[in-house]
Amino acid sequence: MTTDTLGRIAQVLAERKQASADSSYVASLYHKGLNKILEKVGEEATETILAAKDAQISGNTDELIYETADLWFHSMIMLSALDVGPQAVLDELERRFGVSGHAEKASRNQD
Amino acid sequence: MTTDTLGRIAQVLAERKQASADSSYVASLYHKGLNKILEKVGEEATETILAAKDAQISGNTDELIYETADLWFHSMIMLSALDVGPQAVLDELERRFGVSGHAEKASRNQD
Amino acid sequence: MTTDTLGRIAQVLAERKQASADSSYVASLYHKGLNKILEKVGEEATETILAAKDAQISGNTDELIYETADLWFHSMIMLSALDVGPQAVLDELERRFGVSGHAEKASRNQD
Amino acid sequence: MTTDTLGRIAQVLAERKQASADSSYVASLYHKGLNKILEKVGEEATETILAAKDAQISGNTDELIYETADLWFHSMIMLSALDVGPQAVLDELERRFGVSGHAEKASRNQD
Repeated sequence: MTTDTLGRIAQVLAERKQASADSSYVASLYHKGLNKILEKVGEEATETILAAKDAQISGNTDELIYETADLWFHSMIMLSALDVGPQAVLDELERRFGVSGHAEKASRNQD
Repeated sequence: MTTDTLGRIAQVLAERKQASADSSYVASLYHKGLNKILEKVGEEATETILAAKDAQISGNTDELIYETADLWFHSMIMLSALDVGPQAVLDELERRFGVSGHAEKASRNQD
Repeated sequence: MTTDTLGRIAQVLAERKQASADSSYVASLYHKGLNKILEKVGEEATETILAAKDAQISGNTDELIYETADLWFHSMIMLSALDVGPQAVLDELERRFGVSGHAEKASRNQD
Repeated sequence: MTTDTLGRIAQVLAERKQASADSSYVASLYHKGLNKILEKVGEEATETILAAKDAQISGNTDELIYETADLWFHSMIMLSALDVGPQAVLDELERRFGVSGHAEKASRNQD
């Protein structure tokens, strides 16, 4: 079901890369170029963070769900702009989740 | 397959919420609290943006895939900390993608 | 001279907090509330980061200067919204810069 | 006084660009390169935003001042890495603040 969701969105995004700038929001973003897409990723990350803080206080998670959808959606546009599909990201997550406990942290070799 | 991936991760995350802080990276993040989790979301968003800029120049998307996985992963920890599952986000994306063209933009009622 | 700049901006910002929402961009931001101001801080941080990456390649720093001004400006609106002046931030920077070398890092007691 | 603060910090930063990586936190950042510096700018922006949200609720602005100092400080390291001084940013702010009301917005020609 998730596959359907992310896979189908990826397909729609691929189609809109070919379309004229004024045919859709996504097509217009592609035409504006990578910086504009990345600005949106940054914006949506900030809005998600603010929504999470507000949800913690209000107990209402509607806005959080909405903003997280925006964040994932724009990060999929970013991937698509660089010819990467969501499956590559899911594969990476799969790879990590054969691992458990603190090993998972090591496998992420973060600073 | 994606369902498996995100759904399974969500299950692992839910289990680690109950675990002691030193049992895993995720458990330690939960214990540090929401601000620490949101700092990670912000960090990973920045690292994803930098990786996308570098990928555009180098043509190598490995780091981009890696950082996007980190971003999605930490946003799932955030959701889990507030008792939201990834399916709620996928449902919201589904809802939008019954819509096409510029209508999609309107439905996102952005500023 | 810097004092003049930041101090004078702080004074202008304080005046616009009292003004009607449609009297200026700053007044309208105050009326929209703290979340909107913080969204702008996040946006400008992303735009600054992108401008820095581009400047490194092009050698042209005009956009970087412009976006950093936007970042500092919006962070001053944020401070003002919470009744903090820029001098408090400059005092904190002063406090740190009596210190040198790695000691400076310790004084910042970061994670 | 502010001039002293930002100007003096800029001078210290310029000196540390020449120093060995292990001589100070700033020197080590320069050696790690621009991406690492920009990651810090993104991190500090997120921490500032979280501190502002918390300050709004608690009324305590200590953390906000601290994190904003970190944000300004790391954005000055970024500028210095690209051979830009803080005065160029202050000049840009000066330029805008000869303008008033909504004109200021237009002069920022934002999207």
